[in-house]
Amino acid sequence: MLSRAGPTAPCDSVDLDHGEKLSNELRIIPLGGLGEFGMNMMAIESGSDLIVVDAGTLFPGPERPGIDVIVPDLAYLLSRKENLRGLVLTHAHQDHIGAVAHVLSRLDVPVYGTAFTLGLVRKQLSEFSFHKPPHLVTIKPGESLVLGRFTVEGIHVTHSTVQCMALAISTPAGYVLHTGDFKIDQTPIDGRKFDFAKFAEYGDRGVLLLCSDSTNSDVPGFCKSERAVTTALDRIFSGAEEALFFTCFSSAIHRVQQIVDQAVEHRRKVALVGRSVSTACDIAANLGLLRMPPGTMVRPHDLRTYPRRDRVTIIAGSQGEPMSSLSRAARGRHNTVEIEEGDVVAFSAKMIPGNEARIYRMVDHLYRQGASVLYGGNCPDLHVSGHPCQEELKLVLNLVRPRYFLPVHGDYRQLAQHRRLASEVRGRELEESWVLENGQILQFDEFGARVLPDKAPVGHCLIDAGTGEEVLGDAVMWDRRRLSNFGVLVPVVTIDERKGEATDVEIISRGFVGSEDAKALLDETTSAIQTAIAKSTRAELRNLEVIEDRIRNGVQRHVARKTARRSRPLVVPVVLDA
Amino acid sequence: MLSRAGPTAPCDSVDLDHGEKLSNELRIIPLGGLGEFGMNMMAIESGSDLIVVDAGTLFPGPERPGIDVIVPDLAYLLSRKENLRGLVLTHAHQDHIGAVAHVLSRLDVPVYGTAFTLGLVRKQLSEFSFHKPPHLVTIKPGESLVLGRFTVEGIHVTHSTVQCMALAISTPAGYVLHTGDFKIDQTPIDGRKFDFAKFAEYGDRGVLLLCSDSTNSDVPGFCKSERAVTTALDRIFSGAEEALFFTCFSSAIHRVQQIVDQAVEHRRKVALVGRSVSTACDIAANLGLLRMPPGTMVRPHDLRTYPRRDRVTIIAGSQGEPMSSLSRAARGRHNTVEIEEGDVVAFSAKMIPGNEARIYRMVDHLYRQGASVLYGGNCPDLHVSGHPCQEELKLVLNLVRPRYFLPVHGDYRQLAQHRRLASEVRGRELEESWVLENGQILQFDEFGARVLPDKAPVGHCLIDAGTGEEVLGDAVMWDRRRLSNFGVLVPVVTIDERKGEATDVEIISRGFVGSEDAKALLDETTSAIQTAIAKSTRAELRNLEVIEDRIRNGVQRHVARKTARRSRPLVVPVVLDA
Repeated sequence: MLSRAGPTAPCDSVDLDHGEKLSNELRIIPLGGLGEFGMNMMAIESGSDLIVVDAGTLFPGPERPGIDVIVPDLAYLLSRKENLRGLVLTHAHQDHIGAVAHVLSRLDVPVYGTAFTLGLVRKQLSEFSFHKPPHLVTIKPGESLVLGRFTVEGIHVTHSTVQCMALAISTPAGYVLHTGDFKIDQTPIDGRKFDFAKFAEYGDRGVLLLCSDSTNSDVPGFCKSERAVTTALDRIFSGAEEALFFTCFSSAIHRVQQIVDQAVEHRRKVALVGRSVSTACDIAANLGLLRMPPGTMVRPHDLRTYPRRDRVTIIAGSQGEPMSSLSRAARGRHNTVEIEEGDVVAFSAKMIPGNEARIYRMVDHLYRQGASVLYGGNCPDLHVSGHPCQEELKLVLNLVRPRYFLPVHGDYRQLAQHRRLASEVRGRELEESWVLENGQILQFDEFGARVLPDKAPVGHCLIDAGTGEEVLGDAVMWDRRRLSNFGVLVPVVTIDERKGEATDVEIISRGFVGSEDAKALLDETTSAIQTAIAKSTRAELRNLEVIEDRIRNGVQRHVARKTARRSRPLVVPVVLDA
Repeated sequence: MLSRAGPTAPCDSVDLDHGEKLSNELRIIPLGGLGEFGMNMMAIESGSDLIVVDAGTLFPGPERPGIDVIVPDLAYLLSRKENLRGLVLTHAHQDHIGAVAHVLSRLDVPVYGTAFTLGLVRKQLSEFSFHKPPHLVTIKPGESLVLGRFTVEGIHVTHSTVQCMALAISTPAGYVLHTGDFKIDQTPIDGRKFDFAKFAEYGDRGVLLLCSDSTNSDVPGFCKSERAVTTALDRIFSGAEEALFFTCFSSAIHRVQQIVDQAVEHRRKVALVGRSVSTACDIAANLGLLRMPPGTMVRPHDLRTYPRRDRVTIIAGSQGEPMSSLSRAARGRHNTVEIEEGDVVAFSAKMIPGNEARIYRMVDHLYRQGASVLYGGNCPDLHVSGHPCQEELKLVLNLVRPRYFLPVHGDYRQLAQHRRLASEVRGRELEESWVLENGQILQFDEFGARVLPDKAPVGHCLIDAGTGEEVLGDAVMWDRRRLSNFGVLVPVVTIDERKGEATDVEIISRGFVGSEDAKALLDETTSAIQTAIAKSTRAELRNLEVIEDRIRNGVQRHVARKTARRSRPLVVPVVLDA
């Protein structure tokens, strides 16, 4: 299935001259990642062949309480499972590979990616069991992969992790170039440059559609090279008198390399602490992607035998995850890691929005231990973004010169701004561009390019943190938000059907305000229930659903009326016969 | 009570020479704002006199579901209400004045502040009713206010709102200088400079204790002048072809002035939309603090009669508050405001951490309307901080040259970094400094300065969003978090005491995962309850509490065991007699 080759020609029948009609049908269906940050997944379909680019996860915000992670709804792929030719992964970040296990538990599909990407995928899959062993196939940039009527070539791009690829996909309608995530790092840490030549080569051949990373499309200028962080690291190493701690994303192999290199230069020993960091580094080291000199690397336990001023710890937990190594160390609850007066803890990672509060709580704990902490606020040059800013996006647009443009990976505002950039750069040479929402189907056929009126089924599968099960329907989230904001009232109502009255009403409340005023409110509510029951006919009293409804509405209306602020606790009536 | 005067001399008995003992007792008790962002409040006490600096609110994070706002616990003040001489407000921000109504509903105390500060307080108080009309007294910088044995002088400082004061408080132990919130703006919009001379004058006289704003103590350099925003505004006004919208904090009077000035220059008309913005601007304008030329200002309704390219709207809602004017306009649901293709919406305000998600959702809606949106990400020069960075803090330390230093207003990390700055600047001239937590009592007396072993009662009063009542105790929050993450199970269990068994068990669930697997889990749980009941003795079955406990524990244990991920729904047992 794999063959080493240069760019493959698109199918003969396609003519890419502007203005001419396209002779073969192609459908692009974003299944995730458009209008949201994460959960990237795109289906590319032609006739009876379908390939998927990436399968990522999305992290739930506070509006999704009790949810561990969000994965894409696979309904569209399930309805076409016999057409599925492959899942191609661009790189090793969770928002691109996090849902691979979810996909493989439901679909029998080979997975393609670079060695490092598949290394992390393999690790992830080892936590699940599958009917059939997953079929993972390592590919390299420059190789051509034939998947039905598609031929896919990976193109090396620079990014914040290693072995990242853009994908040039030869389709019956022409070339589709999908950038994956990238930045244009002119001085990459591993020396492997962004493959400008290949982008230009495809540009020369004529690209039908460019799908490009929009994460930083709102940021003017160029993204700084990963190498820019070296200056800050050198300053930290030169100035430190005691132990040094660094935390970064586990897949930030370039960053780990920079820290290890500094440690070699400053004759310090390095330990990796935390499963995610050591797993990713082991995979990278085994692939020759990370140079960790044995004289420098020591086990966490052994690091303690060296003087404090000779120690460097690279530790997992940059996002303040409560059970992470750094979080435990900050609270003085780690077996092997102790953070002491005079130590420096440096955050070499972005604070993902939504995580600030818990990260800062951890930073506060580190200060309580007497450490100096370096983070974005007081040391902004300790991290650079991994995504392309406006000038990089323009460069790619000019290299690739696509006829059509679809911004991917981003919220609506980022897609919209990226689309405007493309219009500025390509002017009238760009036939059309779109800001699509997930599930919209972009079709190329003999009539040209258009968004179909019908949508593919898409959505968020919410994986419950408590049970690990998929949460079905919106009702659970709706209830949780309401429970979370207002609590729950359980009116236990005993009804004497003959007398037509509630002989006993007790309201149990949890998470409802505990004040004296609230107690009085509940007492009044009891009377409101009794009145509602007294007003009901015999026939109504015989119908449990009607009675439950009446109690629920009675309680909700009474509480809302009495609280001008509109308290809306969840009401769970329990009705008993006298 | 008010007298115009220069700095007042501290009481005669105090000798501020280094090394000598202090002859009069003074206690500084932070009641809020230390170790947190917001809810600033400090008690200053000597003998039977007590004054309070500021009474602010704190905004609840997602770990406080259903809470509207957090105000300080007043127990310490209530226990000394006969000693309370005054509440002195430094400036008009909510984290300094938001809890004034809460204070006045419980304590009879005069409130002092500048005209603008009290204007906003008065507006806030108008929403409440009080037994006694509040006693609000306007003070000006340079005036001395005698409050028991304290004399307080306001000192004009620059900040992101108008009429802000530091407080120089003459106490029996010496001068306490409290900066309030400030920045050192060398080119303030209203031309009223930071009063360096007064700071220096107190420095010359000798200051016992400096309490200084730590919000930006982790940021190197100087904070940019408010005037720095003018360049960005001018660029926006010059380039815009259609209607312009600006959103900022309602009390950001300088910012409003800059926008109005630009509108005059570019011959546009300005409307203020949103109650909070127009209230604050009206108060400022009436005090001569905001120049709004009548030919420029028009009512929102009338703005529509002008061509789009002549319109400017200053609109409330920079934090994405769901019911704000901007939020409604973004969704096309505002009566008078329409945002259309080609309009520019500019955010001239900080995104408060925690609000990003909803702000960005609003930005996405604005893009859907076809607007261009300028915000921190794509236009960082549209806002500057209002708080002092490290060089400004150093300058104040060198002007005031205090013997003791207490960093205030900030999380632990900011207080700790501010304390280190003070050590660097003052070296051995600083006798001592502290990072205190709320409630710790800093005492100055004949034995010197020390933190007392006992703490004052402090805490967060959580005001429930639903009922407007104070949430008493931690149990409600605990329950809400649990309800929010896992939902609620209501096992309704009918027990036949004679038979010693559960004749009927039904489990009602809400907010619990809705999957088939979860239904199976609940069925099993039913059996677990029946087993638990069958194992109970007659005596136990007669004790409702024991039985409820047994059911609750049985359900919780069963669900936890069956969900390796440890689901912990709230369990509310309802037990009935057969």
